[in-house]
Amino acid sequence: MPALIPSYAPEYSSQELRLKIRRGEIEGSTSGLARTMQANLMVLPSVYAKDFRGLCMRNPVACPLLECLKPGDWESRLAVNSDLRTDIPAYNVWKDGELVSHRKSDVCEEWTSDHIGFLIGCSYSFETALKDAGLESICSKKNLAVPMYITNIRLNPSGVFSGSYVVSMRSYKECDIPRVREITGNYIKQHGEPIAWGWEEAACIGVRRKIEMRMVDFGDFVEIPDDEIPVFWACGVTPQVAVQKCQLKGVIMSHLPGEKLTSKEINMIYLPTSQMTADIFTEALPKLLHDTHTASLGLHLNHKVQRTNPNIQ
Amino acid sequence: MPALIPSYAPEYSSQELRLKIRRGEIEGSTSGLARTMQANLMVLPSVYAKDFRGLCMRNPVACPLLECLKPGDWESRLAVNSDLRTDIPAYNVWKDGELVSHRKSDVCEEWTSDHIGFLIGCSYSFETALKDAGLESICSKKNLAVPMYITNIRLNPSGVFSGSYVVSMRSYKECDIPRVREITGNYIKQHGEPIAWGWEEAACIGVRRKIEMRMVDFGDFVEIPDDEIPVFWACGVTPQVAVQKCQLKGVIMSHLPGEKLTSKEINMIYLPTSQMTADIFTEALPKLLHDTHTASLGLHLNHKVQRTNPNIQ
Repeated sequence: MPALIPSYAPEYSSQELRLKIRRGEIEGSTSGLARTMQANLMVLPSVYAKDFRGLCMRNPVACPLLECLKPGDWESRLAVNSDLRTDIPAYNVWKDGELVSHRKSDVCEEWTSDHIGFLIGCSYSFETALKDAGLESICSKKNLAVPMYITNIRLNPSGVFSGSYVVSMRSYKECDIPRVREITGNYIKQHGEPIAWGWEEAACIGVRRKIEMRMVDFGDFVEIPDDEIPVFWACGVTPQVAVQKCQLKGVIMSHLPGEKLTSKEINMIYLPTSQMTADIFTEALPKLLHDTHTASLGLHLNHKVQRTNPNIQ
Repeated sequence: MPALIPSYAPEYSSQELRLKIRRGEIEGSTSGLARTMQANLMVLPSVYAKDFRGLCMRNPVACPLLECLKPGDWESRLAVNSDLRTDIPAYNVWKDGELVSHRKSDVCEEWTSDHIGFLIGCSYSFETALKDAGLESICSKKNLAVPMYITNIRLNPSGVFSGSYVVSMRSYKECDIPRVREITGNYIKQHGEPIAWGWEEAACIGVRRKIEMRMVDFGDFVEIPDDEIPVFWACGVTPQVAVQKCQLKGVIMSHLPGEKLTSKEINMIYLPTSQMTADIFTEALPKLLHDTHTASLGLHLNHKVQRTNPNIQ
């Protein structure tokens, strides 16, 4: 279940908030704590940077890259005086594919001169635009995390990285779909317009059965009213799944989902508490679970090619 | 079957070649006529420009946008003194979704101040790089057009446009896949590295049965040797299929496939004659045929949504 921030939670400026986090005065989710756009963080050894950048460039809807820092740099150009090693309340750290630190408060020791930070867009913001248009989603109304599903839609592979889209799901009346598409289509760096909608397309992308069984891959299950249909957006969880799947060598860091970098320079949009995705991805996905997911979706690795070059999945 | 240009065909500078085409001195395929990169042309009424640009931005591997001209402009910034209305040997013109002119020598009358031209990258160039690395494809060796298949891989929709990837297929030994990926991965604006390879993935993307039945959707069928596997790249035919599918209102123009704009400013790479894709897409795809393709691939339109807004497919 998602953590809830009290409605009287103070709103800080981005810089105030980052400073408070750095001093250890704030722990937990940043959702709702600043009237800003937030960003997902992924930090990789430089040897994987070209491939990861390629993954984002080749899949900009699922992995919208906001910034790629220089090797060893930890100050984002999008956030003045930021320190990406300390300004996120909690980090996850993987070593050689295994989760070695969970909810770490900083990564000063882990972040070497060889590490490269990537900031990736986050879709929280269009909930407000939808709400302003009278199209607030049920999960927003109910303060639930948005339901997320691993689909069978292939990512364009890039070097060591491959995988499939993760989508977030909301439901709408069919007559509202054109407006929903138009409104969210403006959020180019936050996944943009939906990539599929309707029950037939839910089946096409491999998630209909899960919805009918009231299951989710991540987030909270939300019932779809009889007069509404499911609508699917690409989700920022996609690159995390792709990276975790690849069992990379060396030290990998990311924000703990829900606890992100705030940056007033990107945009000024209120993030409702209801949209936090905490309590998902707090463990690395076991290989068996991942394989079960992909197999059930009809996706298969080419193991012969893997044997030829273990880096290629 | 593809047209063949004699091996003694003269090589012109890009500007010379465009001038000769403009004067009507050259007809037919431009393939092999200049040591340059070539580009696909799509010209749409301005009302569709935002959606088409979005289609390219959201699907850069299948639809790599090189340039979007200003309304009414016909000189590409990528090709000095070019006139996109006359500098391509042959054009196709559609009106309200129907092909009204085939192999037209210029589109001066059709190109109004409301039309917007788009130049899209073309994958011919990496054949030479593969050949230089000792990895020439069979279709290149045999002077055949590359076989192309409509897959079940979804495009990220953008406004009125949706559809699925078209892929070109070549075959390689498994041990050569890493080098093939690396070499073609450098051609970022020409579809980059392959998006799938191997027989299992051929089944996943919905084309294995067609290959086994020695069928193609476009191009020439090429036999895959027993010790090789199929390798698939995103193909520049993708945006043409997406546009033709949508039955747009007004006048649409495109180059006749194989007869493209040459531009020395983009790159300086020799284009082998064997890679031309002439004689495909010379007719608009009938709706029935398109629907048969999509249905056989497991893709279904949401007709309820279509009724709500006929522009959304």
